[in-house]
Amino acid sequence: MTIVLDFGLIVDTYFIVAIRPIMSQVLLTLFQQSGNAKGTLRERVCNTLRNAILDGALKEGQKLPSSRVLAADLQVSRITAEAAYAQLEAEGYLQRMMGRGTYVALQMNKPMPARKTTGQLRLSQRGSMIVKTGGCRDPESPLPFAAGTPDLRAFPLKVWKQITAQQLRTQGEKLLGYGDPQGYLPLREAVARYVGQTRGVNCDAQQVIVLTSSQQALQLIATLLIDNGDNVWMEEPGYSGARNAFISAGASLIPVSVDKCGLLPERTLPVPRLTYLTPSHQYPTGVPLSLERRLALLEMAHRTRSWIIEDDYDSEFHYDGQPMPSMQGLDRHGNVPYIVTFSKALFPSLRLAYLIVPAALVAAFTKARTVYDGHCAQLTQAVTAEFILQGYFASHIRYMRQLYRSRRDWLLLQIEQNLSHFATPQPAGGGLQLAIWLPVGQEKELTRQAQKLGVITPGLAAQYQTATALRDGWLLGFSALTPGEITQAVVQLGKIRLT
Amino acid sequence: MTIVLDFGLIVDTYFIVAIRPIMSQVLLTLFQQSGNAKGTLRERVCNTLRNAILDGALKEGQKLPSSRVLAADLQVSRITAEAAYAQLEAEGYLQRMMGRGTYVALQMNKPMPARKTTGQLRLSQRGSMIVKTGGCRDPESPLPFAAGTPDLRAFPLKVWKQITAQQLRTQGEKLLGYGDPQGYLPLREAVARYVGQTRGVNCDAQQVIVLTSSQQALQLIATLLIDNGDNVWMEEPGYSGARNAFISAGASLIPVSVDKCGLLPERTLPVPRLTYLTPSHQYPTGVPLSLERRLALLEMAHRTRSWIIEDDYDSEFHYDGQPMPSMQGLDRHGNVPYIVTFSKALFPSLRLAYLIVPAALVAAFTKARTVYDGHCAQLTQAVTAEFILQGYFASHIRYMRQLYRSRRDWLLLQIEQNLSHFATPQPAGGGLQLAIWLPVGQEKELTRQAQKLGVITPGLAAQYQTATALRDGWLLGFSALTPGEITQAVVQLGKIRLT
Repeated sequence: MTIVLDFGLIVDTYFIVAIRPIMSQVLLTLFQQSGNAKGTLRERVCNTLRNAILDGALKEGQKLPSSRVLAADLQVSRITAEAAYAQLEAEGYLQRMMGRGTYVALQMNKPMPARKTTGQLRLSQRGSMIVKTGGCRDPESPLPFAAGTPDLRAFPLKVWKQITAQQLRTQGEKLLGYGDPQGYLPLREAVARYVGQTRGVNCDAQQVIVLTSSQQALQLIATLLIDNGDNVWMEEPGYSGARNAFISAGASLIPVSVDKCGLLPERTLPVPRLTYLTPSHQYPTGVPLSLERRLALLEMAHRTRSWIIEDDYDSEFHYDGQPMPSMQGLDRHGNVPYIVTFSKALFPSLRLAYLIVPAALVAAFTKARTVYDGHCAQLTQAVTAEFILQGYFASHIRYMRQLYRSRRDWLLLQIEQNLSHFATPQPAGGGLQLAIWLPVGQEKELTRQAQKLGVITPGLAAQYQTATALRDGWLLGFSALTPGEITQAVVQLGKIRLT
Repeated sequence: MTIVLDFGLIVDTYFIVAIRPIMSQVLLTLFQQSGNAKGTLRERVCNTLRNAILDGALKEGQKLPSSRVLAADLQVSRITAEAAYAQLEAEGYLQRMMGRGTYVALQMNKPMPARKTTGQLRLSQRGSMIVKTGGCRDPESPLPFAAGTPDLRAFPLKVWKQITAQQLRTQGEKLLGYGDPQGYLPLREAVARYVGQTRGVNCDAQQVIVLTSSQQALQLIATLLIDNGDNVWMEEPGYSGARNAFISAGASLIPVSVDKCGLLPERTLPVPRLTYLTPSHQYPTGVPLSLERRLALLEMAHRTRSWIIEDDYDSEFHYDGQPMPSMQGLDRHGNVPYIVTFSKALFPSLRLAYLIVPAALVAAFTKARTVYDGHCAQLTQAVTAEFILQGYFASHIRYMRQLYRSRRDWLLLQIEQNLSHFATPQPAGGGLQLAIWLPVGQEKELTRQAQKLGVITPGLAAQYQTATALRDGWLLGFSALTPGEITQAVVQLGKIRLT
């Protein structure tokens, strides 16, 4: 509604007395319309006048009622009316002249149009590219068989709370302040020791960068190491989070097939600038990368001056013997940035992961981190460091490994007993999910039937870049499920009928 | 050290008996050299053999001692030796043939070179650009007068802990899991209500995106809305964190001067794709942007289909009356993404901030967030939401505003009494720091003297993009300092001698 009142030239007292009721009426109407708005009474009065001016209902030079009259008209206190006028004068809407009254000070060439705050989607090219990836999806549901989340019911929350309280007691508000963008030093030291001992990673705390997530590590790597059009070798099928990070940096992705010994690059492939690998336990097929291939890929990286990204995303959870030591530890030339997340080993909302880079890259990554989002929360870093140092981390991992192994075994047994007519489980030496192949061309139909039976069965199709290589299958997350929940879900899936 | 032993052809028992001591001696030497290494005894045995093979000391086809002999040689248990052989066979280093013994299985064309893990700095163009910005620096020190940090000693940590315990009790492990990438809904609702009431922001919870920091908001904005070479208007002097984010997106930065009414663009400036503003309290000069200029800039943004970024970084802390309502609330076309951080109002290591965008942009920003780093910690979001809902946020802000106001007043008084011979304080209606001008050409020398006197005086020079516009000055952070600390530091500065 736009009401135009133009009293600009009227100064005679007689007229002012005569028209005051009209002005009062208008302001009162606008004020009453704002009745449902939020904020204090003073704010409502301010907003009423602001909007009347912006909408052109009140024009530059127009005289407003005295604060006493305004108070009476709007039935607010004189103090409120006075405060509103003072505020609006400070903001530049009104001008108050001693002994002459209060005037509209703002000149609007044309009234403001009505609000259209939906806005328009005007994205940069890079922005459009990122949106086109569809984004990354974290597993949202703990239901069978949404992709692998840790079993949070088994997390030692009590110990965690104790260490949190202890850290706040001993370090206090220091932990609330800004932190080292590279990461809290005691955590970096604990991490360097841990991966040295358990994964053969060759590093010191100066090479460790603490980040919020492996996704952030991938994003920083993509930004700092990849130029538009650079070739990136990706496992096919492979981890879509990595794919999206490299796409967002403008990389040219080259899918490389995976066989039972891991990545198998053909000789004719164009030289990569970077190769993304999940060597301990290929995502999603579960295959470990063989020693020969590791050595060949490292040799290739050295020869082509390219990077190998080792995403060691679930190496804590290997069930049949030790996982092979890291590729980073085999590398002799500093070509292997190494990523681990705490999301699986501890809990996803911790928002901690780490990236270990060759010494030459540390300063660049740390600077980029500050331009991206500063640093990680200090308290959670301190608690995590203590959790590791006091031995809880190692014992939690041991416990969870046993728990998950028993669940994997149970799932495999259930599949054998109930789904052998259509499901072929893949190597499952570790991890929180199990890949199973389905009969060719059946993924869509079987997923539809599973959904009807109330079971979520994430498809393998989403992990493929190219439709030609696509293999029908499911990726069943089992780690957060009790044996009872597993049985129930598999029995449901057993009702699926092949066409 | 590389020791080459070539026994490949020797199979005769006599010779094996004869040379066994040599092999044993070599392995024992290598094993003893690993004495300081980390890890279990089994891991040390594994590493000794791995390295001997990788370094070429043991070659493909070579026979190794039996596990019994190995155990005796290295003085480890038979179980350890056996486990090491089994592990190395699984990894592909060894092959064990029933009744015939254990052989090196890995073919190394040439021995691995010695470790050079420093690596090389091979950055992408974008990476080099980001590194060249020098990164962003958070205020590290609570010492006078490092740039404005909140006074963490005054944070109601007890209440915070209570709410944390309460949230964990009522919501439990749900808060440990993956979260909504757009942000925890109760926090988005609380934020939308709060900024609607206090800042006149026109939004609902669906437009709020919870991020880790205003820096992350700037980075996402730069990535999604800016293409290489796009013009970005920046306040001069202005916030270097924003400048770095836009540089990292390849923007062409156009410095726009700031006078006592805020940003003053000349008519000849090229049309921007985006304008970055701190309208409530220009960073670092402290000037609020006048109403006329706000309206003119909004009109310009509408006409040129460009964005205005409103960084409302310290609007909670205005000391002389209310700050002007947000520009976002004045905008009628959905051109104003709006940023607020919790780092100043609560504490920096919380790692929470929010970005309010026009509805059309929400999906794009949320997707990009997932590709960047997923989501924010759920527990801290839930605690912050409760802190707001239970009224603690508003009362904390009120209390801190009074505290900071009294400190600002004290600082101004101290400057007047001690530093009037060289320091000219700028408008300080709000914020956690005070800009003061210094005599032309003196910033460097005066800063040097201040440093000698033990006082940190962040220079204004760093806030300028172009050296020509540069104005000598300091930006004194006072918010975390007690009156005693302020007095002491200013008295020190009073000893400075002008040349």
